[in-house]
This record gives sequence, structure tokens and C-alpha cells, in this order.
Amino acid sequence: MDSLQMKPEEIERESFRIIDAEAGEHGWPADEWQVVRRVIHTSADFEYVRSLVMSDNCVREGCEALRAGYGIVTDTRMALSGISRARISRFGNRVVCHVSDDDVAGEARERGITRSVAAMRKAVRDERNRIFVIGNAPTALFELVRLIRAGKAEPALIVGLPVGFVGAAESHEALVSAGLDIPFITNIGRKGGSNVAAAVINALAVLAAPCPCL
Amino acid sequence: MDSLQMKPEEIERESFRIIDAEAGEHGWPADEWQVVRRVIHTSADFEYVRSLVMSDNCVREGCEALRAGYGIVTDTRMALSGISRARISRFGNRVVCHVSDDDVAGEARERGITRSVAAMRKAVRDERNRIFVIGNAPTALFELVRLIRAGKAEPALIVGLPVGFVGAAESHEALVSAGLDIPFITNIGRKGGSNVAAAVINALAVLAAPCPCL
Repeated sequence: MDSLQMKPEEIERESFRIIDAEAGEHGWPADEWQVVRRVIHTSADFEYVRSLVMSDNCVREGCEALRAGYGIVTDTRMALSGISRARISRFGNRVVCHVSDDDVAGEARERGITRSVAAMRKAVRDERNRIFVIGNAPTALFELVRLIRAGKAEPALIVGLPVGFVGAAESHEALVSAGLDIPFITNIGRKGGSNVAAAVINALAVLAAPCPCL
Repeated sequence: MDSLQMKPEEIERESFRIIDAEAGEHGWPADEWQVVRRVIHTSADFEYVRSLVMSDNCVREGCEALRAGYGIVTDTRMALSGISRARISRFGNRVVCHVSDDDVAGEARERGITRSVAAMRKAVRDERNRIFVIGNAPTALFELVRLIRAGKAEPALIVGLPVGFVGAAESHEALVSAGLDIPFITNIGRKGGSNVAAAVINALAVLAAPCPCL
């Protein structure tokens, strides 16, 4: 069938069919695979089959965090834009990104820190913010881990997927090795990105919905 | 040096140094390489060294299109968010994305087309819109090519980088094989994305700036 004649939901279904067929035996449990598959759908990159890392029960707990309506914090406007409002609206989660706020820019200048770090510090001051989606800045993820250890943040879910060549892989490792009792999704290596991080939330939002046809 | 102590511009410089070193002999001319390199910086994916495709002189002509202040159209809010306003502000380009507009949703319903197609049709009605940045929807790129052939659109630059498993690779090929006399950047295969498409514009904006230190 010509893709131009297909509806978006048909294209998505056909895309998932192709991904399933090409991935073959992948070893992921069914629910976790929904997340991996949507990341591949967003990136056309099968490397994520082997490199994504999820804490035990993080899909179930991530769904609960969404259903609880917790505020979602992103490190970039791109990740914020990539999260499907249609999919999360039923749960009432707000999505915020403070990286371009004037007070954050001021604090960053004053303290000699990155705006990404200052934005995380601002985000954790609001206790409603419990879901952290980091797709760009390693410093944001390092800072979030530091804030948790300092007792200043208590996330219900961390999507830790900075991308790049300086600090990204190390920030993923820092999240895994921190031994936090917090559900997380990250990646081995340099890859990640705002699009990939948003895709994780969108996949969880589908899984969290009361009816699979929604 | 610890990446946490580095400034963003130092991190970028070091990232580019690593990319240059790992890419080795790549065969891209210097200006084109600035674009390829920023795509890799955004995706951590060296596959783009071999798979990106640019029309002759597209970097020079793309820079001219930005300098002319032409309106930029994106197919997603993510691509719109990913384009650095700081980098293009000197040229005065507006950036628009019509995919979530109410009238676009209405037209899509009425005519049985995707919102991405309806959004492209709306965008070309405004003659100031001459730069098209497509990072998600194959139907948007197919439609843009159709509109050009029908004499209803006259882009000065096309960044054609839909991603995915149904129609994306075909839309890239359609752009290449259309034989249009319009500068374009696309990719061989399924990869692309809003982040990658935005990175292309950001790279061109750096090259188009009057002084390399800006």
C-alpha cells in the first residue's frame, strides 16, 4: 500500500511491524519493548535494542508516575515539544523547561554554572516536579544525581538520555552506578537526545493509558 | 579536564575535535563538513558521514537563503524548538510550524489528508516562506515536492530529513530524483529527525554569520 494513502495510525502500526520483524529475538520483556520500539521508531536506530538500560520495574513505576499527574521537567525546549500533550493530558501532568528563563540565566551567570544546571536547581524547588526528562545536557543529569544525593530532589522517574561526545556517556554511567532507589531509563554510550527522551515518555504514556486502543 | 568545569563553548569545541578525529578522512569539503559535523554532534551517529546528501552549492545557497531573512517552515514543533533563535536572529528569519493550527486540522479532516500535508499547503500560501525544514513526516516532503512541481512553492532551501520506517527513505529519494533546481540536504535511508533537521539550519546559521567568532 502506498504510504501516501495511509492514515498516521496505520503508518505507526506498519512501522512497529517492521521494527519487530527486523529486531528479531531481542530479549526485552513485552512492556519494556514498547519503550525500546518507540525509541527506534523515533531514531530509525536499532543500536538502542542493545544499548538502552532500564532499572527493574521502571516501566510499571514510570507509568504510575505519569498516572499520578506529577510534573514533568525537561532540559530542552525540544524535549518539551516532543512530549505528546494528547497522550499525557488524561493524567494532568504539566511539562516545564526552565533553561530559557531569565532568572535561570541570571543565576547561571552569577554562580558560574551552566544554564542547564541552574534550570535543574529551579525545577527541584517545586515539589510537584517528579519526572525528569534529560535529552541534551550531561551537566543537567549530573546535577540531578547530586541534588538527589543531597536530599534536595525526589524524582519518581528519571529519563537520563543526554547525547554527545563530552560527558554524555559518563552521565549515563553516573546515573546507573549511583545506586539510587529511583526508576530510570538511560543508554550505554554517547547516544540519546531530546527526541529519544521524549519518545520514552510518549511510550510510557501509551502504556499508562487505561485502554490500549486509546 | 572535567566536563563539569567546562563552558558550553568549550564542550562544543572539544566535541567537534573528537568528531574530526574519529571521522578521519571523510571526503567532505570544508563548509559541507560543518553541516555534517553538527548533525553528528546532535545524534552521536557517524553513519551520517556516509549517508547525508547535499546538492551542489547547497551550503553557500542555504547560507544566502538564511541571510535573505526568508521565513523558515518546519513540520514539527520539535524542529521549530531546535532551531537556535540566537543564531538566526541577526538575519530576521521567522520560524513557523502550522501542524497544530486549528484551520490545518480542519482542512485535514475535510479533505482526508494528513495534518502534515495540510500544514505544508498553508505554509506555501505565504510567499515569505522559502526555507523548508522537514524532520518527521514523509508526507510533508512528498507534498512539498508536488507543490513545487505544480508551481505553488518556490523554496530557496529544502532540508528534507523525515525519519522512520514507512515512506521516509522513499521521501528522501523523491527529493533527490525530482531534479529540482533548488538547494537541498537529505539523507540516504531511514534516518533523519527533527533534531537532525534543526541541526542543519543551526550549522548553516553559523556559516552564514558575518564573523566566525560569533
